Amino acid sequence: MAGERTLLSYTPEIKVVDCTIRDGGLTNDFFFTDQFVKDLYIANVKAGVDYMEFGYKASKDMFDVKKFGKWKFSDDEDIRAIVGDNNTNMKISVMADVGRCDYEKDIIDKKDSPIDMIRVATYINTIPAAVAMIEYCHEKGYETSCNIMAISKSNDIDIDAALEQLCQSSVDVIYLVDSYGSLYPEQIRRLSEKYVSFAEAHGKKVGIHAHNNQQLAFANTTEAVIKGVSYLDATVSSLGRGAGNCPSELLLGFLKNPKYKIHPILDFIQQEIVPLRESGVKWGYDVPYLLTGILNQHPRSAIAFENEERTDYKDFYIELLENF
Amino acid sequence: MAGERTLLSYTPEIKVVDCTIRDGGLTNDFFFTDQFVKDLYIANVKAGVDYMEFGYKASKDMFDVKKFGKWKFSDDEDIRAIVGDNNTNMKISVMADVGRCDYEKDIIDKKDSPIDMIRVATYINTIPAAVAMIEYCHEKGYETSCNIMAISKSNDIDIDAALEQLCQSSVDVIYLVDSYGSLYPEQIRRLSEKYVSFAEAHGKKVGIHAHNNQQLAFANTTEAVIKGVSYLDATVSSLGRGAGNCPSELLLGFLKNPKYKIHPILDFIQQEIVPLRESGVKWGYDVPYLLTGILNQHPRSAIAFENEERTDYKDFYIELLENF
Repeated sequence: MAGERTLLSYTPEIKVVDCTIRDGGLTNDFFFTDQFVKDLYIANVKAGVDYMEFGYKASKDMFDVKKFGKWKFSDDEDIRAIVGDNNTNMKISVMADVGRCDYEKDIIDKKDSPIDMIRVATYINTIPAAVAMIEYCHEKGYETSCNIMAISKSNDIDIDAALEQLCQSSVDVIYLVDSYGSLYPEQIRRLSEKYVSFAEAHGKKVGIHAHNNQQLAFANTTEAVIKGVSYLDATVSSLGRGAGNCPSELLLGFLKNPKYKIHPILDFIQQEIVPLRESGVKWGYDVPYLLTGILNQHPRSAIAFENEERTDYKDFYIELLENF
Repeated sequence: MAGERTLLSYTPEIKVVDCTIRDGGLTNDFFFTDQFVKDLYIANVKAGVDYMEFGYKASKDMFDVKKFGKWKFSDDEDIRAIVGDNNTNMKISVMADVGRCDYEKDIIDKKDSPIDMIRVATYINTIPAAVAMIEYCHEKGYETSCNIMAISKSNDIDIDAALEQLCQSSVDVIYLVDSYGSLYPEQIRRLSEKYVSFAEAHGKKVGIHAHNNQQLAFANTTEAVIKGVSYLDATVSSLGRGAGNCPSELLLGFLKNPKYKIHPILDFIQQEIVPLRESGVKWGYDVPYLLTGILNQHPRSAIAFENEERTDYKDFYIELLENF
């Protein structure tokens, strides 16, 4: 890349990836109405979003289909019921977790599927399994990404080794993922430079998936853009696990490519997000998520704190320190 | 300054300035209970906060004392009722707006006052009036700052001229203020470098006062720190006009000086902020503030939108564009 991108750079290689259903499904066990998903699809197409992720391809042997909405499993026919032949400029993605999917059964030939990209989520110790999935999906004709989760718990030597291994694979996009919302912009810049340097040498792209525990998801995403990261995950109104993600409306308001429009997303917020929040689904920045973020911990204890409607923030902090 | 500060830098010259009452007072016309203010004072002292701002020194000729709580005026005796002789390591500040105070009447000799610092707020076109106030307060024995507001509407030539003029004054601290929450980290870094370069040449310090319209108040504050900005404004739970400010709890969780403690602020949030929000006082990030932030506008229309409990975000955006 010739120099750093600047605030007014027009950067056609940027791709906005909407993960509202997939990450948001972690707040309501994927029980979205069809209307919600259809309205989001239409809003994303109008907004110029490049990819929309419908959900996970989770194993029906491992997870009880009666306990989750359909987007935990994202059957091709359920996606088709929303998108038809998807005659739009927006591509469709799903996520498949290493060790929690039956990809050889559930992921069919690309030519028979409405899905364009399979995003493989992995922890750093299961990269070889991720690579096997990536090669399978690549052979089937899909674009692929590898989302290495929880790297704020990993050291640089392991991250380098993981990136090197992925660079030898067929993967198209390598994702920098701040699972715990614990990384500061300074760290994101350094990691972005590392990821981009590996990826560019092998003709691959880099993406970022941020969490908002410290109100840094948007800032970290824009800082990654400056360093050459191109695939930008966002969710409408931050809808996602715990503190949520980089808000689509902030990201679309920031990007300078005139193909991106903010108003379809604003309309969707009024039509679907306001009622969803009123229905009691909980997500978004709050003090307990900040605390797990600072301490670089999984947000599960903060989610429990919120669900119990506790407000004893100091006591919660002391509990976290004792389990550190 | 020898090189940039890094994430683990221990930076003893950093000062945290709590503006919860002063900026927060813009959400409730300064009608805080004495208990709230006293509890905040105690929490700030315990947390290692360096300055606590009690409110404005507003003109009683211009503003009806019956229509505002006491912290609109911040009489010395009202401050004394909270802090006594303030035998702590925390200093006390108040803000005085150019053209909206009677400083020659209301600001007495420092030796007779509980106040340590007078922060003079000005628009860029009234810098000479600000300098007159600064010289008056300096003569009376106070530390002073100059907070140049709304600079996202100013050009670099005017900002340079303002900084040059302030550098020739007795002011101690010059503040970079993002009144509309419209500046991105990239811009904050550039402006911080400019302010610090002027200030260091004249033995002065630089501060930052950020707003959270685009969820960037904390990120912009930490980026300013890297560039040598030392006085950091924050408010508990972002309490402040519109989208609010850099949250104290995020800032205290970030700073590495062990004198800063987060748990007294967590306790205060439970004791006083949760009930304040439940009482109906409105503040904090929401879509309309993002929109005025992107468009670099005063948040007043967004505040009205929130107070009317509207949710037609798209229509509001179109209204803003038509008044651009």
